[in-house]
Amino acid sequence: MKKIIGIDLGGTSVKIAIISPSGDILEKWSIPTNGLDNGNNIVFDIIHSIQEHFELLQLSEKDFLGIGMGSPGKVNPVEKTVVGAYNLGWSRLQQIGKVFENIFPLPFFIGNDANVAALGEQWRGAGKGERDVVMFTLGTGVGGGIVANGQLVTGFGGAAGEIGHLKVDTEQRFTCTCGGKGCLETVASATGIVNLARYFSKEYEDVSSIKKAVDDGNDITSKEIFNSAQKGDVLANTIVDQFAGYLGLALSHVANTLSPSHIVIGGGVSAAGEFLRQKIAEKTYENIFPQIRDRCQISLAELGNDAGVIGASKLVLLGVKNN
Amino acid sequence: MKKIIGIDLGGTSVKIAIISPSGDILEKWSIPTNGLDNGNNIVFDIIHSIQEHFELLQLSEKDFLGIGMGSPGKVNPVEKTVVGAYNLGWSRLQQIGKVFENIFPLPFFIGNDANVAALGEQWRGAGKGERDVVMFTLGTGVGGGIVANGQLVTGFGGAAGEIGHLKVDTEQRFTCTCGGKGCLETVASATGIVNLARYFSKEYEDVSSIKKAVDDGNDITSKEIFNSAQKGDVLANTIVDQFAGYLGLALSHVANTLSPSHIVIGGGVSAAGEFLRQKIAEKTYENIFPQIRDRCQISLAELGNDAGVIGASKLVLLGVKNN
Repeated sequence: MKKIIGIDLGGTSVKIAIISPSGDILEKWSIPTNGLDNGNNIVFDIIHSIQEHFELLQLSEKDFLGIGMGSPGKVNPVEKTVVGAYNLGWSRLQQIGKVFENIFPLPFFIGNDANVAALGEQWRGAGKGERDVVMFTLGTGVGGGIVANGQLVTGFGGAAGEIGHLKVDTEQRFTCTCGGKGCLETVASATGIVNLARYFSKEYEDVSSIKKAVDDGNDITSKEIFNSAQKGDVLANTIVDQFAGYLGLALSHVANTLSPSHIVIGGGVSAAGEFLRQKIAEKTYENIFPQIRDRCQISLAELGNDAGVIGASKLVLLGVKNN
Repeated sequence: MKKIIGIDLGGTSVKIAIISPSGDILEKWSIPTNGLDNGNNIVFDIIHSIQEHFELLQLSEKDFLGIGMGSPGKVNPVEKTVVGAYNLGWSRLQQIGKVFENIFPLPFFIGNDANVAALGEQWRGAGKGERDVVMFTLGTGVGGGIVANGQLVTGFGGAAGEIGHLKVDTEQRFTCTCGGKGCLETVASATGIVNLARYFSKEYEDVSSIKKAVDDGNDITSKEIFNSAQKGDVLANTIVDQFAGYLGLALSHVANTLSPSHIVIGGGVSAAGEFLRQKIAEKTYENIFPQIRDRCQISLAELGNDAGVIGASKLVLLGVKNN
């Protein structure tokens, strides 16, 4: 039974795994991401690490179906290139596919990291292998990935899944990294919840640990806000309800468009767990078309850091070929 | 070269066509839809009409690849059933596929009418055969259809494309047919624009043909509102701008999610043409993520009433098999 190599390229480390065709992780390891010298060593570091493990595990190319990779930045899955992955030092176009295919005589596939994680969760995580699954990844920003008809939706030019930029804040209070205002990401990411905390602290007059931290000029984190909310802090609960309200509205837009069986919530912020999931689900269900609502589960991600390597290996199985 | 039969089942007539595998209409005709007796004769009327045309044109089953149909109501494309098509008298489950497959030894496929029209426009109309195309159909309500990766997206349970129920009116002024408030359909359909006309007429104090019609208790139509707007009526322009603003927001949500190369605007209301298209496009582009905006064209539908039969025949080619 031939295996697959899954690679999840991140800003601080590269996760690499050998995966069975049914999605079980047989081996996994990681190497640091070397962002020096415009990230010129990253791809060769990965290739050397794979070659080392081939030797170590007495494997060779003929034991594999192919190699799949998830990458930050703007990924072109047909040309197998990446550009604008600034956290890797890759501001210019990187010919990832050509390098891999020159060295390993194996099919190579690449996708955007948020899309690839969604594919992993759809296949072996909270999506339970269903054909229509959407993932929202709540981190510093809000990323997303869409699986429809069992296929990863990459869209024209590979830009699908930009759900962090759905315009949901009609008051347009905060400027987004994209230059716009009102984007989901400005109110429903780790950054967004801090935006809301600062905004609501100003007008709040009672005692609150969050208000105190803001007024004292301390950094606050999404984790502190969720913790305070669970302890009954009124301001923190206002902030979390707003956060969940915007997410719920965005989830309902995506659900009404695609009718997924599962919407999966992942990323660092989703560590707030069932407390957050319930609030988001409540706000989402308020806004979904009834026939879709009855069939759409809202779940927390299940694969954690493994979603990337598992999704990357699924890319190989799908042989994804898009624009 | 084998041909395809495309059927577009509507509330007043059934359009039927013989179509080439490249999507050219070779013959087309229509029969009235007989809604009497709970619509029990509809399927047999269609079958008889096809049999008559087989005789007339000296064709038989062996000249065809299959039969495709678009239908109103809730369509299950796997079971090939329809339920809740009230305008046909079909409140109960209809076993359309079984009847067709018993009579014609040909593959039979069925889809929701809005989805099938989108597939037609994607294939041979304004979508220019691109793989990622979305259609918004503006009629009494707002319907939609999504083609991603060249496949019709039907979603879990066949309910994808309910973009008429995206919640875009945060003031939630009008109740929707779904029982909710704030749905796109309540502000951006033939019904929705009249809702807006009544709402804005109340507070408007200058002379306006639209305000006069509302105050006199006359029925007004979307056509009259668009005509008045083009003639410079200030109130009518306010109404049209609101209408276009809500549509633009909804289009941006779908575009940010799916990154389509084309968004096609069709349906009766789209008869307002280039005047309306420009306004919608402007509002949409204000809200789209830059990288997607640069690649997404907003176009008027091109196939008119033929979209249904052409899309239905494409269903056969795709051999759509969903949940």
